[in-house]
Amino acid sequence: MSTPLPVTDRTRFTRYRERQVTDRPALYDVLDHALVAHVAVVRGEGEQAVAAVLPVASARDGDSLLLHGSTGAGLLRAAAEGRTVTATVTVLDGLVVARTVFDSSMNYRCAVVFGVPVVVADDEKEAALRVLSEHLVPGRWDEVRRPTRRELAATLVLRLPLDEASVKVRADGPDEDEPEDRGVWAGVLPLHTAVGAPRTGDDVPAGVPVPASVPAAADRLASWTPPYR
Amino acid sequence: MSTPLPVTDRTRFTRYRERQVTDRPALYDVLDHALVAHVAVVRGEGEQAVAAVLPVASARDGDSLLLHGSTGAGLLRAAAEGRTVTATVTVLDGLVVARTVFDSSMNYRCAVVFGVPVVVADDEKEAALRVLSEHLVPGRWDEVRRPTRRELAATLVLRLPLDEASVKVRADGPDEDEPEDRGVWAGVLPLHTAVGAPRTGDDVPAGVPVPASVPAAADRLASWTPPYR
Repeated sequence: MSTPLPVTDRTRFTRYRERQVTDRPALYDVLDHALVAHVAVVRGEGEQAVAAVLPVASARDGDSLLLHGSTGAGLLRAAAEGRTVTATVTVLDGLVVARTVFDSSMNYRCAVVFGVPVVVADDEKEAALRVLSEHLVPGRWDEVRRPTRRELAATLVLRLPLDEASVKVRADGPDEDEPEDRGVWAGVLPLHTAVGAPRTGDDVPAGVPVPASVPAAADRLASWTPPYR
Repeated sequence: MSTPLPVTDRTRFTRYRERQVTDRPALYDVLDHALVAHVAVVRGEGEQAVAAVLPVASARDGDSLLLHGSTGAGLLRAAAEGRTVTATVTVLDGLVVARTVFDSSMNYRCAVVFGVPVVVADDEKEAALRVLSEHLVPGRWDEVRRPTRRELAATLVLRLPLDEASVKVRADGPDEDEPEDRGVWAGVLPLHTAVGAPRTGDDVPAGVPVPASVPAAADRLASWTPPYR
């Protein structure tokens, strides 16, 4: 059994407490079904403090979340200064269509991770990039050449420990506060990821086949359908 | 012609500048193709300052973004104290599968809005809720009863002006830094929203038909396919 997520001042819900989930597998489930995390870094001081937010490719690696930080100057600074960042991942699972607008809602899985990012060291960078690549397009890593030394040097990967995180899940049908007109339909419109036909790059010569990783990635994404209780 | 988005210290890109878009219709495009915004509020002071982030239902209303704030205690405080929050919306449009892992990327549209949220006044709340509802499930508003006074009182809607925002778009095929092996496939795996069959609520009597708004919402979401340059 894994240890449950500790509930801290930062992760304790003040509303919808029944949606708070503290088991680690639930956290893994959210992170493993998302391709992008929104990373928020505080910039400025006092009244001027504001959150800068960036979407970055993410992948879970055991008990940490890897973040592809090539665009993340703010992330790098946070890591250097030991400042806490917030990585948020939301999987939207459905529109909950109740008999009233008031009770209408969404089904979703959301994880909010608080932590100090650590820059992945040079000798671990290739392995970390492999985890990211295999999360996004499994199998692609072995179809292409390995990253060069120059490419690795130009890439920033950050590791965020999964020590402090909140997980919120709604995975249910409509639920009205008051009994409503039973002649009105209510239900859920499930949402997941649709994958279109692969679009071959303009400079790919005719006859170069679509590699196995691409339909496999499409099938995997399309299989990420919503959970229901 | 609408006025372009001003580039401020907060919205100026330091990397991937060619992806910065400053025309207002591009901002509208991102916000109009998302159901949820991630709202970040700074909590704490000095070294302890950290961003709290919540996913909230969102809908654009002219030159402002409406946020459904019923779970947003932090949002309410930000509004009361006149503090700037950050609302981020990302639409993931595709996996860009290049001939190298280094050049692989994602197609996406991302808007980051900075602003001080304003609580929508009681006499404007029903209209604001209607905009939110019609963005999520167009037509549903007229299929159900109007919100009661008690329901309106229990609902918080915030309005974030669209005065300061950055928009970043990647909508292109793979683009390698160096000429690579032309025998290797490269391209894009387009992503959009898949909508499953409506799932009728457990307490809906047999024979109650699925209303027109539900398949219409499904068709609309499924039509939000990725743009390409």
